Formats: sequence, structure tokens, C-alpha cells
Amino acid sequence: MMNNSNSSETALLDFSAWAAAKQARIEDVLNNALPSTNVAPQRLHSAMRYSALEGGKRVRALLCYAASELCKTDAKVADAAACAVELIHAYSLVHDDMPCMDDDDLRRGKPSCHKQYDDATALLVGDALQSLAFEVLSQANLCTQTNHQVSMLNILAKASGSTGMAGGQAIDLASVGKMLSQTDLEQMHQLKTGALIQAAVLLGGINGEIEKTAAISTYAKNIGLAFQVIDDILDVEADSSTLGKTAGKDADTNKPTYVSILGLAEAKLHAQQLYDNAIDALTPFGESALRLRELAGFITQRRF
Amino acid sequence: MMNNSNSSETALLDFSAWAAAKQARIEDVLNNALPSTNVAPQRLHSAMRYSALEGGKRVRALLCYAASELCKTDAKVADAAACAVELIHAYSLVHDDMPCMDDDDLRRGKPSCHKQYDDATALLVGDALQSLAFEVLSQANLCTQTNHQVSMLNILAKASGSTGMAGGQAIDLASVGKMLSQTDLEQMHQLKTGALIQAAVLLGGINGEIEKTAAISTYAKNIGLAFQVIDDILDVEADSSTLGKTAGKDADTNKPTYVSILGLAEAKLHAQQLYDNAIDALTPFGESALRLRELAGFITQRRF
Repeated sequence: MMNNSNSSETALLDFSAWAAAKQARIEDVLNNALPSTNVAPQRLHSAMRYSALEGGKRVRALLCYAASELCKTDAKVADAAACAVELIHAYSLVHDDMPCMDDDDLRRGKPSCHKQYDDATALLVGDALQSLAFEVLSQANLCTQTNHQVSMLNILAKASGSTGMAGGQAIDLASVGKMLSQTDLEQMHQLKTGALIQAAVLLGGINGEIEKTAAISTYAKNIGLAFQVIDDILDVEADSSTLGKTAGKDADTNKPTYVSILGLAEAKLHAQQLYDNAIDALTPFGESALRLRELAGFITQRRF
Repeated sequence: MMNNSNSSETALLDFSAWAAAKQARIEDVLNNALPSTNVAPQRLHSAMRYSALEGGKRVRALLCYAASELCKTDAKVADAAACAVELIHAYSLVHDDMPCMDDDDLRRGKPSCHKQYDDATALLVGDALQSLAFEVLSQANLCTQTNHQVSMLNILAKASGSTGMAGGQAIDLASVGKMLSQTDLEQMHQLKTGALIQAAVLLGGINGEIEKTAAISTYAKNIGLAFQVIDDILDVEADSSTLGKTAGKDADTNKPTYVSILGLAEAKLHAQQLYDNAIDALTPFGESALRLRELAGFITQRRF
């Protein structure tokens, strides 16, 4: 979607190395945060690790780290924030895949949690991953300014709940077979995907240079929506093995998407517009926002 | 189980009035904390209110308020703590009742959430009630000492997660049809019921006179276990209409309980011993621990 000049290819290489380092780092942080399979209840802990480790591109963690670099947040705080956001995301995938929700057997190229274990375990895995997110973010001696820590917890809780991610999922389920306006669709996706993406960026920044919060919030809102538009496009264009989940699912289940409402070409233009808005919000920060800028490109160009 | 002298009857009357006032108060606090049914997604919010309001005896909230009175915590903090604990409890009931877990159609004398709504809604209700608990407890300007607020959030998260309530539920599910030792059973119930009861007491006290924490923690641990022992006894002795849930369920599903392991008479003696331990822990505080003492009696004498 973006131009590929030689200079941007160089930047892309740098970005790949940066992203790989952060992906390894969040894997390590998650590995330490998740209880060992030696600790009872062992089957639950095994299923939690199965669901939260070795997963995905860690876009939310990358956004969190990129925002923390822009706002000069402590590394320890950025780790906890990225970890908490990824745990919430992992829990949501486990519950979304369950038979009473999207009933999806495949996740990140592996059997989804309830297929690998069982429905009751998947339910408890999601529940316990959510608790663990708040446990990680409320650990003692994380922030010198504990009022920032309380704010981070509040942002994460709101982004996860009934007026955030869980609420978006509820609207999504209710919208099957219905015609939605673009405004309604945007509101649904703002909750379902956007809220947690936005939280990832804010949590990365809030314990640092707090005066940048408004700008990164605008960036985050646009990139969160762009993420969902691309998701809808990929559901039509990609195959299951590339996606690591079942493709063509939206059309099969008669769910309204950006593609079904706007058409493919218009949906792509919309993603480009959201990308542009996100980039514009970073203008005041010049090179210090490089990673967030690159991530916006990564998200809109992705094929996964 | 306890003696009923005239003086204790007078105290019981006082306690009833106190409990009724606190039950009305927590209902009001929950009512304000839960999103209105006018706010989208309306069906989800309606189901959240259905599941969290007008429910039960609010034992956890009463314990939280009683501990806050002993430790002289701010009323606003006690309200938030009691509300958060009741929201976690409500979420756990909604998920426990689901077909893939205990598959129970009746809760607090009404159809359980998934029967009244549907499985997907019940899943999201539980998820969103958990988020809301952390949202309420992380609200801005709640505690002057935000480090106490962070501690409260951490206690609640640990009590809810895989080494707390959700973990206890996992062990409970895995124990069906197995013989457990009393020690294993106690560990399971310490997680499943005890952890959140203990958190309720600690959360009530922690932003107040923190030097009382160790004593109320001992109280809480014993009363949490006593609660579960009584639960097992009532499952055998009471009928469904009194309980407001399906009686005889444990024996039907071949779950190990205190009654199945110790026998009825021994289980009652065990409850008495736990009650005595809880009361002993309060000795240093004299009359200022009256409500916690009365609550211990209320819990061990209950018929619901």
C-alpha cells in the first residue's frame, strides 16, 4: 500500500530487526509471567501457556514498546504493559474461538484451545489470562508514580470490558445477518479491536512523557481501525494457511465487514486514509516516532 | 451451631439491621457501577445487570464492609472494594453455570444467565464483569495512597486467577469421580472459595489500619474454608428452593466434598473448628471486631 523506495527498504530492514528483538522480548516476558506447568493446577497452566506463548506477530506489544520508546517510559513498565495487553488479547482469542462464539478450530496455525484441551478448560484459561493481565500490571514496585500505574490499570480495564473489547464482540455477534451502516460498523470495530490497540499505545506511553498522550491516542485510534479494515480485506484475499486461522469466515457466517459494506477497492482506500491520519498525528515528533510510523506501515501492509 | 442466649439474640438483631443496610448499600453501588441498559451493547448490559444485581446475601461485600469498619477505611474505598469483589463473584457464577462447566439452570432462584439469554452472552457477561471489577477498583481519585490501591488490585487479581478462584474451579472439575484427601480438598476449596473471601476481607482493610492485616487475614482464611464446608453440608441437607440453586448436585455429579470425605457429623465439627479459629484471630480487637465476629456466625449458621 505504501511506496517502496530504496530508503524505505533500508528502514524496513531496521524495523524488522527491531520488531524481531521486541517479539523475542515479549515472549520472554510472557514466559516469566505465566505460571509454570509444574504449579497446580497443571493442566490449566499448560493450557494458558499453550494459548499465550509462541503466538502471532505481537502487534499490540510492538505498539506498546514503540510508544514507550517515543515517551521514554521505563523498560520494566513497558514490559509489564506489553505483557498485560498481550494476555488480554490471548484471552479474547481463546473465548472467541469457543463453540458458543465463533466456533473456530484453528488459531495461529494450531488447534484452538478448546480443541486442544476442552471447553471448560478454555473458559477457565480465558478467565485466568484476564486476571493475570491485571496481576502483572498491578505488581508491587512497578512504577515510582503509582498514580500512573492506577491509570494504566483503568485504561486496560475499560478497553477490555463491555464498553471496549467484550462489548465490541457482543455487537459483532448481534450483527450477523444484519446490514450495518459504515458508522455502526466503525463503532463496532472501534470497540472490538480498536479499544485494545489504543490501550496498547497509551499504556506504553503513560508512565513516560505524558504530554504526548493526545497525539499517540489519535494515532492509536486510527491504526486500530486500520487494523480491522485490513483484517476484513485479508479474510477475503488471503488463504487459511497464511492467516493461521480460517479464511472466508466472515462471508460464510454472513457478518457485515468493511468489504461487504464498502466493496474491496473502497475498503483499501479507507485503510489508506486511516494510515495517513495515524501518520499525520506523529508529525510533531519527527524521527523519535519512527517505530510507531513503521508499525503503521507494518499493520496496513500485513498479509497475516 | 452457636449458642442462642438472649444477649446474642439482641446482637443478632443489631447485626441483621447492619447487614440489611450494607446489602442495600452494595446493591446501590453495583447499580451505579454497572452500565445502564440504555448504553450499547444493550443486551450485554441487560444481561450483566441481570447477573450481578438482586443477588444473594452479599456475604463477600459484608465481609469487606466489616473489615473496613474494623480498620477504619474510607467509605468510598470500602464501596469500591466490596463492589469489585461482588462483580468477580457474579462473573464466576455466570461462567460456572454454563453448559461446559456445572451446567446449572437455576441461580439465586432465577434462570441462570445462559438460560435467560444465551451461551455467547453469558460468556461475554462473565468476561465483562471481570473487567468491570478491575475498572471500579482502578478508578481515579479513589485512594489518597495510590500504592494501597495498586495493592488492592493485585490482591484481587491474584485471588481471581489461576492460583486463586479460576484455579480452584479447574481442580474442582478435574476432581470429579476422584477420591481426594482432606488436605487436597482443603487446598481446592482454599482456591475456589477461600481466595476471594480472603480478598474481600483484605480489600476492606488494606487502605485503613494496615497493622491489622495479618490478623484479619487469618480470620479470612478460616472463614473462607468454613463457608465452603457449610456449602457442602447444605448441598446434602437443604432443598433447592431454600438454596436458590440445585441441591444434591455434588453427589449427583460424583464430586468429592467435605461430607463425602469426612461424613456429615465430622464436617460439622470441622466447620465449628474453623469458626473458632476465625473468632480467635479477632481477640486483640475486642468490640471493634463485632461485625466480623457476627459474620462468622452468620456464615456458619446459614441455611442458604
